[in-house]
Amino acid sequence: MDTERHDFEAELQAALDSKTKPVGSLGRIETLAAQIARVQGTLKPSAETCAHTIFAGDHGMADAGVSAFPKAVTRQMVLNFLTGGAAANVFAKSVGATVQVVDAGVAYDPIEHTALLNRRIAPGTANAIEKAAMTSNQLGEALQAGLEIGREISADIACFGEMGIGNTSSATLLAAKLLGRSVVDLTGRGTGLDDEGLTRKTKLLETAAQRTSTKLDGHRALQEYGGFEIAMMAGAMMGAAENRRVVIVDGFIATAAALCARDMEPSCEASFVYAHCSAESGHRLVLDALGAEPLLSLDLRLGEGTGGLLAFPLLKAAAAMLRDMASFESAQVSGPA
Amino acid sequence: MDTERHDFEAELQAALDSKTKPVGSLGRIETLAAQIARVQGTLKPSAETCAHTIFAGDHGMADAGVSAFPKAVTRQMVLNFLTGGAAANVFAKSVGATVQVVDAGVAYDPIEHTALLNRRIAPGTANAIEKAAMTSNQLGEALQAGLEIGREISADIACFGEMGIGNTSSATLLAAKLLGRSVVDLTGRGTGLDDEGLTRKTKLLETAAQRTSTKLDGHRALQEYGGFEIAMMAGAMMGAAENRRVVIVDGFIATAAALCARDMEPSCEASFVYAHCSAESGHRLVLDALGAEPLLSLDLRLGEGTGGLLAFPLLKAAAAMLRDMASFESAQVSGPA
Repeated sequence: MDTERHDFEAELQAALDSKTKPVGSLGRIETLAAQIARVQGTLKPSAETCAHTIFAGDHGMADAGVSAFPKAVTRQMVLNFLTGGAAANVFAKSVGATVQVVDAGVAYDPIEHTALLNRRIAPGTANAIEKAAMTSNQLGEALQAGLEIGREISADIACFGEMGIGNTSSATLLAAKLLGRSVVDLTGRGTGLDDEGLTRKTKLLETAAQRTSTKLDGHRALQEYGGFEIAMMAGAMMGAAENRRVVIVDGFIATAAALCARDMEPSCEASFVYAHCSAESGHRLVLDALGAEPLLSLDLRLGEGTGGLLAFPLLKAAAAMLRDMASFESAQVSGPA
Repeated sequence: MDTERHDFEAELQAALDSKTKPVGSLGRIETLAAQIARVQGTLKPSAETCAHTIFAGDHGMADAGVSAFPKAVTRQMVLNFLTGGAAANVFAKSVGATVQVVDAGVAYDPIEHTALLNRRIAPGTANAIEKAAMTSNQLGEALQAGLEIGREISADIACFGEMGIGNTSSATLLAAKLLGRSVVDLTGRGTGLDDEGLTRKTKLLETAAQRTSTKLDGHRALQEYGGFEIAMMAGAMMGAAENRRVVIVDGFIATAAALCARDMEPSCEASFVYAHCSAESGHRLVLDALGAEPLLSLDLRLGEGTGGLLAFPLLKAAAAMLRDMASFESAQVSGPA
């Protein structure tokens, strides 16, 4: 550790320990405050504003029967986001976050809506069970669009969500290839498969996984198995981290995007706050591999960044604690006897 | 279940399942929304406002060495609450809750401050290691003052915190007597005891526990071992529940108050939302006995209702979800294939 960094860490710990509370008694809120302070490079951090960006895209795999819902739902949900009726909208309003919806590659014709950011790469990916989900050029475009979106986020906190029927399957394949694990260990019910559906999905994902080596890097994995919305989210995570924004990583699909992002740009990891341990069975395995302990565990399995939004008030409170709480000295409170 | 109740439950489940999300995919947020709806008796519940009340009181036991901090800290922290510098103030502001501080029985002379609610029973309890912490009359006064405070809460959500050097010991004895458990199973480090301090505290609490039967009811336990702040909080929980307010139960000490409240008035339990699983070792045992699974687990061990305040945004989002989210029909979104 260089001297400047060492001084900052010492000042940060002293600031936390001077607050009118027993040392360490705010547990993970203290750890979180310290992380936000480091990312922002200040002992007076701010997590007052949060920009939530939802990337939507379709998956060729969806037609093969990996999801309980028809592909048309992606488009219908984009319209629901745009009219403010989805869970992500309601949660964003409740916690005071803004919402931006991005069409990264939704199936059928382009959606015309003034509030929608059109960054469509194609009307859905190719069927990744049979061949690469996207071309190298398409991946480059998706990452670049994401990078630009991430770099432009001016809010204190960047939160990302996704919508794409079939994208739990895409995330499962990405996580399996990044970690070099079998898809069998990582496959779950997504948003609502029954036993039969789960067996079918696992077989399909095994077929898809067998097309390539056991382990792939983030770039290659995204091209083979990614959704446009996941690739664009990975780019946005890198862009936001580059711009010193704290990045809230939602559930299983966002964690797969984060895995790819840190593989492509290891420095972005320092900005990641893992929000929610999903009910999707593979998520725990991936989190363990990352050494990550999410802030919340509420059995959510919806996506859209809903877990991330629910975690935002914890970041806001953590930063406020470090910034605004009185010290033993300023409040004239006695320390331990 | 009577017909009216049965109809309400059916309508509530139908309302949750009609929302544009896979059935049950918001996990514990759905359970929470349903609980708020039941308490408020409406399918359009509201958790927009939160009143946080902090009860402060001193413990005769503190002078015997059960805490790492001197008794004077209770009074100093009350002044810190009144000037807005404590963790509870900063968290309340961050999540949009109001704060009311109540002197339930702080040691030394009364504190003169216009913002402080004076409900002092006495300048601290008697030393519960040797004799009953309070008289029957004092307990009656404390419960009555709490009931009135709870009944007057007009915010959607009632959150309660406490401050009292030595009150982890009081809560440990209360929980042990309500559950009929040994204090050894329930004794932890409070806000900051080392190994030697923990051994001393455990011995003192065993001595205190041996004064009475293995199991006591809520009323008797509070008189023998309670703090004025814990008894008043138990009264306030009953009063707020009677007034159909959802009650956020913070950590170990608030859970001990909740145990006493539900023993005295079983119907109030339906209003309780357990916010945080404390780092204090006995808390998990008490929660298991209650069949309660708190919303958060962030290694907090501060008190003041800090865990409750951090949970409030989850209640707010849960109520908003049930109230404001679009239905599949209203948003024209397809259900599972």
